[in-house]
Amino acid sequence: MSSRPETPVLDRVTTPADLKRLSDDELIRLAHELRTETISAVSETGGHLGAGLGVVELTVALHAVFDTPRDKLIWDVSHQCYPHKILTGRRDRIRTLRMKDGLSGFAKRSESPYDPFGAGHSSTSISAALGFAMARELGGSCETGLGDAIAVIGDGSMSAGMAFEAMNNAGHLGKRLIVILNDNEMSIAPPTGALSSYLNRLYAEAPFHDLKAAAKGAVNLLPPPFREGAKRAKDVLKSMTVGGTLFEELGFSYVGPIDGHDLHQLLPVLRTVKARATGPILIHVLTKKGKGYAPAEGSADRGHARAKFDVVTGEQKKAPSNAPAYTKVFAQTLTRLAAADPRICAVTAAMPDGTGLDLMAERFPDRVFDVGIAEQHGVTFSAGLAAGGMKPFCAMYSTFLQRGYDQVVHDVAIQRLPVRFAIDRAGLVGADGATHAGAYDVAFMANLPGMVVMAAADEAELVNMVATAAAHDEGPIAFRYPRGEGVGVELPETPQILPIGKGRMIRTGSRVAILSFGTRLQEVLRACETLEARGISPTVADARFAKPLDRELILQLAQDHEALITIEEGAVGGFGSHVAQLLSDEGVFDHGLKFRSMVLPDTFIDHSSPADMYATAGLNAEQIEEKVLTTLGVDILNKRA
Amino acid sequence: MSSRPETPVLDRVTTPADLKRLSDDELIRLAHELRTETISAVSETGGHLGAGLGVVELTVALHAVFDTPRDKLIWDVSHQCYPHKILTGRRDRIRTLRMKDGLSGFAKRSESPYDPFGAGHSSTSISAALGFAMARELGGSCETGLGDAIAVIGDGSMSAGMAFEAMNNAGHLGKRLIVILNDNEMSIAPPTGALSSYLNRLYAEAPFHDLKAAAKGAVNLLPPPFREGAKRAKDVLKSMTVGGTLFEELGFSYVGPIDGHDLHQLLPVLRTVKARATGPILIHVLTKKGKGYAPAEGSADRGHARAKFDVVTGEQKKAPSNAPAYTKVFAQTLTRLAAADPRICAVTAAMPDGTGLDLMAERFPDRVFDVGIAEQHGVTFSAGLAAGGMKPFCAMYSTFLQRGYDQVVHDVAIQRLPVRFAIDRAGLVGADGATHAGAYDVAFMANLPGMVVMAAADEAELVNMVATAAAHDEGPIAFRYPRGEGVGVELPETPQILPIGKGRMIRTGSRVAILSFGTRLQEVLRACETLEARGISPTVADARFAKPLDRELILQLAQDHEALITIEEGAVGGFGSHVAQLLSDEGVFDHGLKFRSMVLPDTFIDHSSPADMYATAGLNAEQIEEKVLTTLGVDILNKRA
Repeated sequence: MSSRPETPVLDRVTTPADLKRLSDDELIRLAHELRTETISAVSETGGHLGAGLGVVELTVALHAVFDTPRDKLIWDVSHQCYPHKILTGRRDRIRTLRMKDGLSGFAKRSESPYDPFGAGHSSTSISAALGFAMARELGGSCETGLGDAIAVIGDGSMSAGMAFEAMNNAGHLGKRLIVILNDNEMSIAPPTGALSSYLNRLYAEAPFHDLKAAAKGAVNLLPPPFREGAKRAKDVLKSMTVGGTLFEELGFSYVGPIDGHDLHQLLPVLRTVKARATGPILIHVLTKKGKGYAPAEGSADRGHARAKFDVVTGEQKKAPSNAPAYTKVFAQTLTRLAAADPRICAVTAAMPDGTGLDLMAERFPDRVFDVGIAEQHGVTFSAGLAAGGMKPFCAMYSTFLQRGYDQVVHDVAIQRLPVRFAIDRAGLVGADGATHAGAYDVAFMANLPGMVVMAAADEAELVNMVATAAAHDEGPIAFRYPRGEGVGVELPETPQILPIGKGRMIRTGSRVAILSFGTRLQEVLRACETLEARGISPTVADARFAKPLDRELILQLAQDHEALITIEEGAVGGFGSHVAQLLSDEGVFDHGLKFRSMVLPDTFIDHSSPADMYATAGLNAEQIEEKVLTTLGVDILNKRA
Repeated sequence: MSSRPETPVLDRVTTPADLKRLSDDELIRLAHELRTETISAVSETGGHLGAGLGVVELTVALHAVFDTPRDKLIWDVSHQCYPHKILTGRRDRIRTLRMKDGLSGFAKRSESPYDPFGAGHSSTSISAALGFAMARELGGSCETGLGDAIAVIGDGSMSAGMAFEAMNNAGHLGKRLIVILNDNEMSIAPPTGALSSYLNRLYAEAPFHDLKAAAKGAVNLLPPPFREGAKRAKDVLKSMTVGGTLFEELGFSYVGPIDGHDLHQLLPVLRTVKARATGPILIHVLTKKGKGYAPAEGSADRGHARAKFDVVTGEQKKAPSNAPAYTKVFAQTLTRLAAADPRICAVTAAMPDGTGLDLMAERFPDRVFDVGIAEQHGVTFSAGLAAGGMKPFCAMYSTFLQRGYDQVVHDVAIQRLPVRFAIDRAGLVGADGATHAGAYDVAFMANLPGMVVMAAADEAELVNMVATAAAHDEGPIAFRYPRGEGVGVELPETPQILPIGKGRMIRTGSRVAILSFGTRLQEVLRACETLEARGISPTVADARFAKPLDRELILQLAQDHEALITIEEGAVGGFGSHVAQLLSDEGVFDHGLKFRSMVLPDTFIDHSSPADMYATAGLNAEQIEEKVLTTLGVDILNKRA
């Protein structure tokens, strides 16, 4: 463990109210200590480092100026909320970040009244803040009161359609709302590009506030020591860029850009805004991701996400891996196929690294499209590519594909366009917790007519499924695979194109058949080992397809066994439900079948290790064993057949 | 039937290729005849009139200048495609619009090679067109070839986040792509408001084309008769508004605004663009919805959607209704409750009329929010309102709620915020066909932890469910109801707050129990009448809740009957699947139960009347009767128990 840094000012802060008693100079020292504390904590826990370091001063300034939790401070995505957590009564638990029963890596309503709106996915903060603002206007109330609503959103998140929708709406409504655009690209002058479809003067009537005048007034409002900072802020306000007018045309006042690491700018600007703003206002703050920690600043991703690391060297302490990650297997297989087939291309929504498509882009840059945080567009763009004769692989995390669901239905499935959905992070994902769980994709994909839905049981199967998807031109097809490493099986030399809608037998036993969809197969086989010791020898099959179902296999399994158990890494409504529908339609239940469907439970499961989360979910080997025993009516206490 | 208009020029047009042989003056006459033909056809069929009339000249100009179907002409939403259908080989079937086995009211790939990308939902056209454009660049191919990609999108559709995402991506990619902004607000000068989050000069390198120069060159390219029009177009190009620069900052060239009803402007501008465009270009066209038909122009919605009507008077021939529409019952109930509870508010995404919220807005304008075509924002905004202590009713059609699915999961369900989802148009919707079917909401909502999901069996039940939702502060709750009129039952004087997760017995019989979720209850009761005549007396229950399930009721029904049949207006994965999960978990199948789940079939069902569509789906009384008989093993031919 690293030695803890000295933090005399931070030690005096229990809640944000304590910041009101600090001078501006003390706030600067506080920021310094907060940065050191954040680095120290993340070195022990791992997590998202760069984002938090970029907003240390902003966090201090916001809590010093505004009255949280009455004022609602909403962090977009909320990777950047670690310093905020330290200042808001959670310093004592900050070294439990992302661990089982520890603090969440994101803002979370149930964790603290200082987290008025949780996140994890991007671009939601302005919508949420606008909700709070309008609730306040309408006389709503909540336990902590309703003051200002403040959204802090990065430039990447701002590019998503959802943020655009929220800005448009906020400008139209015209009520007091504070949006802080946290622009990470400090080294690049911030041009504000432009788009608006508000052609009918929707917002032309919105008031344009004279922030320059407001800032000027604020200089006199402020106590003497702040004068210099205020003057500097006023200069900043004066030099509004042309970009400001674009936000103004949406009904926002615009302030900026200002230096997000200079409290002498941040404090007076925020104080002015707090004192004077009457409508929606956007404060454009320039920050540097990873600020103040050389190993983060110097890395390509500016310390976005780190394993535990050595504070002095920045060296990360990653456990050695035994098998390649599913993501990498997907990307390598796709790249290999793309070399042979010029029609193969790929689409990612701002996750080239996360989906592994950066590997393919190295070899085929023209055929990999990063559309930005834009899943809705990404899916329909893929549909257009397919209609134009290409073979698009639309690679998204299960949880983010939810953003493009309507487009999957409307543009892909109804038109039977052969888009290949590579659904990464399917199932429970570990430290990112409930917001990132891939729990629903089987359910929401498999009930779409014409959709083929596969899940890989291991990394070799994934290789085959990528090839199967590439070969499938008849309509849309999806394959899902989990976060993390494979099981260490050998990868096939030549990918096998799987017959659509056919499962495979893994082992033949008696009395009970377990039909697995996805990587729980490994747990099923572990369960079989202990069951064998008890004299029970289950039949095991890998379904491979949730749609179309392998009707023949399933009916045979039902016929040959006393019990049939399905298992999947997804919620009810998915694979098991489709099997149940088949069995009931076929009258299999009429004369009795011990049918059970093991699915994710009806709860949102908090962050922990994936294995722990699956234990909570009841989908590990031990629980499979127990399910077999109880289903067969074996006395569980004695666990004897 | 109205007498058919004289259409000598149109009669010479079989495919768009025929337009190439017409002079510009003939094209003008063609446009006139096309408008008359469109009015005449819709007067017989009903349908979306105003949108088509607004683009008659644009349709003629596009087909005259571009080489469809090689050039891909993509209509956004595609309400406006009737004139396009008339010109593209479908005139002989235009009077079957939206009828069973007739033409779709939307563009549809399976209907014609001239419909390269179907629609129904808004704001997808730019994404699709960009897909075609990039497929062309990558050497893709399709049967009709790959030429230009042209998206025609209305100003309303352009305001959705998805369109913004597509513009951003198209500008970044920089390839030739034509977007026609069909701006309906002709009477209002077109200001272009502004937003961009492209702060890192992502698109600053995109080439800015000098269309003025291009147009100038085009004057010489064009044959003499077009000179005047070309000159006019050039003047137009010269007078680009400041708004143009906004599109330009996204990497688009901008032309406009031009008069979309003046072929002397449209033709030369399109010819110039066709000859010269090298990157993405936006052509801003001003049109008037309902143009050229006084009864449409004079109506508030400009003839958006019409029943069959008299061409001379414009008077619509609507069948008298026997019962109030579900939409109206919802809106009236909500307005009544809002009068008593100032915390009740409502959110619609550009459908104040369609959701009935315009009724509430008349009395409580401050508490009804129309957020625009922005379902993603609309859901999270509702979540923010709920977090601020309000009682938001987020009213969306089932099919459009798909656009906000991630927000339902991430912002509402995970945080257990008491947003009330009023899900209109649940089930099959009739003339709007597959793109508007509300088939998936039960499946995608009911597997979310903590979500309460109700369906109204009739309009009285809907009244109760609105009140139940208003009273439910513990977490999110949803209630679904279909398009169209109720069944004519009396509405309760005082809405009843239903106990959460409790169904109700409708009739007690024997042997078979039918458990209905939603308005199929009426068909179930009809089926019971004929079954009674055959000596079979089913028990019938109204589940009311798909989540939480009425466990006690369901297990009792299973215990007391030989067979249990569920029925719902939704796809597999929904109510029936949840019931199956309960029954299997409880071991009810172990010893035999004739369980059947009647759901929407695994096909997209084409437009027709709702009753016809339910017959296709197998969910009408006759098919329920048959299901009961076959399940009980009754000889169907003799239909005798």
